[in-house]
Amino acid sequence: SVTLYGLIDAGYAYRSDNYDATKGSRQGFDGGIANGSRLGFRGVEEITPGLKGKFVIEAGINVDTGTAAQSGLTWGRQAWVGLDFGAAEARFGRQYTPQYLIYSEIDPFNHGTVSKASNIFTHIISRADNAAYVTTPFFGDVFSVDAEYAFNRSGDEAVANAKDKRFYAIGPKLQFGKTVKILANYSETKEKGQSNADSVLDIGAVLDFNVVKLTGAYALPKFETTPVKGEAKKYNRFLVGATLPLGNWSLLASYAYSKDKNDLDEKAVQYGIGGSYAFSKRTDTYFGYSRIDANDSLKGKGYSVADSSNAGNDYRTGFNVGIRHKF
Amino acid sequence: SVTLYGLIDAGYAYRSDNYDATKGSRQGFDGGIANGSRLGFRGVEEITPGLKGKFVIEAGINVDTGTAAQSGLTWGRQAWVGLDFGAAEARFGRQYTPQYLIYSEIDPFNHGTVSKASNIFTHIISRADNAAYVTTPFFGDVFSVDAEYAFNRSGDEAVANAKDKRFYAIGPKLQFGKTVKILANYSETKEKGQSNADSVLDIGAVLDFNVVKLTGAYALPKFETTPVKGEAKKYNRFLVGATLPLGNWSLLASYAYSKDKNDLDEKAVQYGIGGSYAFSKRTDTYFGYSRIDANDSLKGKGYSVADSSNAGNDYRTGFNVGIRHKF
Amino acid sequence: SVTLYGLIDAGYAYRSDNYDATKGSRQGFDGGIANGSRLGFRGVEEITPGLKGKFVIEAGINVDTGTAAQSGLTWGRQAWVGLDFGAAEARFGRQYTPQYLIYSEIDPFNHGTVSKASNIFTHIISRADNAAYVTTPFFGDVFSVDAEYAFNRSGDEAVANAKDKRFYAIGPKLQFGKTVKILANYSETKEKGQSNADSVLDIGAVLDFNVVKLTGAYALPKFETTPVKGEAKKYNRFLVGATLPLGNWSLLASYAYSKDKNDLDEKAVQYGIGGSYAFSKRTDTYFGYSRIDANDSLKGKGYSVADSSNAGNDYRTGFNVGIRHKF
Repeated sequence: SVTLYGLIDAGYAYRSDNYDATKGSRQGFDGGIANGSRLGFRGVEEITPGLKGKFVIEAGINVDTGTAAQSGLTWGRQAWVGLDFGAAEARFGRQYTPQYLIYSEIDPFNHGTVSKASNIFTHIISRADNAAYVTTPFFGDVFSVDAEYAFNRSGDEAVANAKDKRFYAIGPKLQFGKTVKILANYSETKEKGQSNADSVLDIGAVLDFNVVKLTGAYALPKFETTPVKGEAKKYNRFLVGATLPLGNWSLLASYAYSKDKNDLDEKAVQYGIGGSYAFSKRTDTYFGYSRIDANDSLKGKGYSVADSSNAGNDYRTGFNVGIRHKF
Repeated sequence: SVTLYGLIDAGYAYRSDNYDATKGSRQGFDGGIANGSRLGFRGVEEITPGLKGKFVIEAGINVDTGTAAQSGLTWGRQAWVGLDFGAAEARFGRQYTPQYLIYSEIDPFNHGTVSKASNIFTHIISRADNAAYVTTPFFGDVFSVDAEYAFNRSGDEAVANAKDKRFYAIGPKLQFGKTVKILANYSETKEKGQSNADSVLDIGAVLDFNVVKLTGAYALPKFETTPVKGEAKKYNRFLVGATLPLGNWSLLASYAYSKDKNDLDEKAVQYGIGGSYAFSKRTDTYFGYSRIDANDSLKGKGYSVADSSNAGNDYRTGFNVGIRHKF
Repeated sequence: SVTLYGLIDAGYAYRSDNYDATKGSRQGFDGGIANGSRLGFRGVEEITPGLKGKFVIEAGINVDTGTAAQSGLTWGRQAWVGLDFGAAEARFGRQYTPQYLIYSEIDPFNHGTVSKASNIFTHIISRADNAAYVTTPFFGDVFSVDAEYAFNRSGDEAVANAKDKRFYAIGPKLQFGKTVKILANYSETKEKGQSNADSVLDIGAVLDFNVVKLTGAYALPKFETTPVKGEAKKYNRFLVGATLPLGNWSLLASYAYSKDKNDLDEKAVQYGIGGSYAFSKRTDTYFGYSRIDANDSLKGKGYSVADSSNAGNDYRTGFNVGIRHKF
């Protein structure tokens, strides 16, 4: 009743065009380019016909250096235990956010390779510590909802909960047959005792025509804790993506756009292409290229060609090729 | 011949009444409240009819934050290899102390939840590094003994063994049928080359009447390395506990008492109640409440409502509820 | 298709005769004396008759203290994914060097116990991060070759690859029947943009006469980055070893010699003996003794009785005895 599973990903990556012109290119054999390498253990126990006990513990692994991924967390990807009541499942522990999970469907690059959406959609929060998560199946095959609450989003709750970053999120989903899916997220992070919150509304769509899958998203992040000109920092962001399956091949493309709404002219755009060739269901090779158009003044603001496990380090152009093996 | 096993525990905890009145309450979704979450691998090889090879490696996991438990040790719960000769088993590595293991039987809360005995019995030492451990079966179904020696109780032995904390323990046990068990421990920690030792004598009993299990312990810790008024710091400590199984329910209660023997009037008392409801043999839910009566002057001395994985942080009242899943 | 495997090793070690006369002996219960304790997961997928997908992730474990071995790397022993094309296998990740692997065959103590060759052959590099590794089978049953390239030998590649330590190695092997094997390595480490390299040529032989196995090696390390008297620091090093299997017993001996070629009279010699008794194919006990002859002036230069997991700490005499269990 315990399943061991995982994925090992490694390859070559090349990055250039640094915001800091004194920095040359960087190349390397990196791990976890398209998907973070991982080892996981998951279990499901059928307690009664309507009740299941479940758990997942999943370790992120930097196979290029042997370190634990997620900045050194031994079990940094997921760690939770829960009960599945059929109409809803409740879990406690370190978990993905509803936002991350909807972009896993919307971003053709699924948070990986140098073309991932979060290089422009820098407001995507992957995981929350100390979280309770409730998820439902699709009621009437049409509607489902995820919700999450964390007493402190990152790191243990403090004594007296001082400076804890309370986080909540709600993510409704609609699906119409196998072709159309509408995905949304509203989430907010607020320090305990403070009134200023950082929040975001994300709305996305997936149109799966089998011969091609088209995806899109619109996001309105708002950061009250880092105001400019006396008002919250705000952005308009959108993404369009396409996935084209061709036998063992899969071709991917996306365009992501971000511009501030505070008349600062902070505009960043990413063009990403890539693809993969499946040797088997479990093993494939992938490649990709990404370019970000953004002014030098956006140095250090995160608009750079990171991949699933490796930082972008202020580079605006990236190329990667690698191997990915699931087990 | 290798078995993968584990336990994932997470839930909600609330703590209040801090020794420091300026600190408010703390609440959170925590991991490992009733039992530390873990993933383990154990193996037994039957070498010859009278000889077995054995090992255990067990990782503690903070599922609320994805970190390794035991203050960041990747394999912090247990890690040892040994030979079982039938009449005795000898193991080498990081291991529990005989003291910890007898309190696993005496403490109704088994070192977990906000009601655990060690909130008052602060002298309990869980594990020793660099240890040899010998354990025997019950000879004549009556008598068994455990013994442990560690060249340094915590962390690697130093060059020239400088300042190594030598540790030894002996733990005899008697059992009379299935009803009566007497458990004892004497252990000592002494820095190499020093004469001052910290030692403790623990004596406990388990009376298992099936409808109810009653337990008790008396302990005499003595700390020569932290003297007061020119003499060793000493305590009188006792514990009484009860476990009441009621079908799928189990109700637990304990009373723990500590007072110094140096006329300092350092008195701390804990009232703990709790229970669990088993959905199945592997999955249950638990709850508990604990209150410590101790003067504000005992701030920072450890008499606080810690649980299996989370510090008490000077709080004197605690409540917890959670899920526990074994695999 | 995933195999869980490992080895747990622990025992007693005694070291004395420190270069620093003020330091006494050190004894302890240590882990990983003869072989580093480990837990590994490896998988092979037969994709097509001529193509396999492969991976290994292997965690080093200090069973004496519960820490991750390899200086705290959670997956520090090996972590790679690769494709096996039959005529060659290509892997990416953190991996052994060809040099380490040939000494696994040449050193009777296989990089372990207080007698290991690298106590004198201090130029042996175990692993490279960020590495691509190509290995071939024995063509015509006679010739094979390994090659490795790393963009940075230790730790992630830096921004702009600044100060990255580029590493490459080539290791050809010849075998003549089951009796004779010739093994070689040439490897070089060079900081990006620098012309000074540290390099080494290693040549070894294994003569396996079944009743006894004789091994030998000659090495010429050259360190341009740490020159003396205006020229590269250079050494002459050789090793002879013998392995004598006697039923369940195995007796081991080696002699290792190092002398500088810069007329500094830096001479260090190690005499190592040891052996093991196999209780079964998976469990054995081992013992060993090692003595290094070197002047006090070589203090801190690494000629000390380290074992597979524990530092020599400038001790020149060592004894060990322990248990080793494979699974």
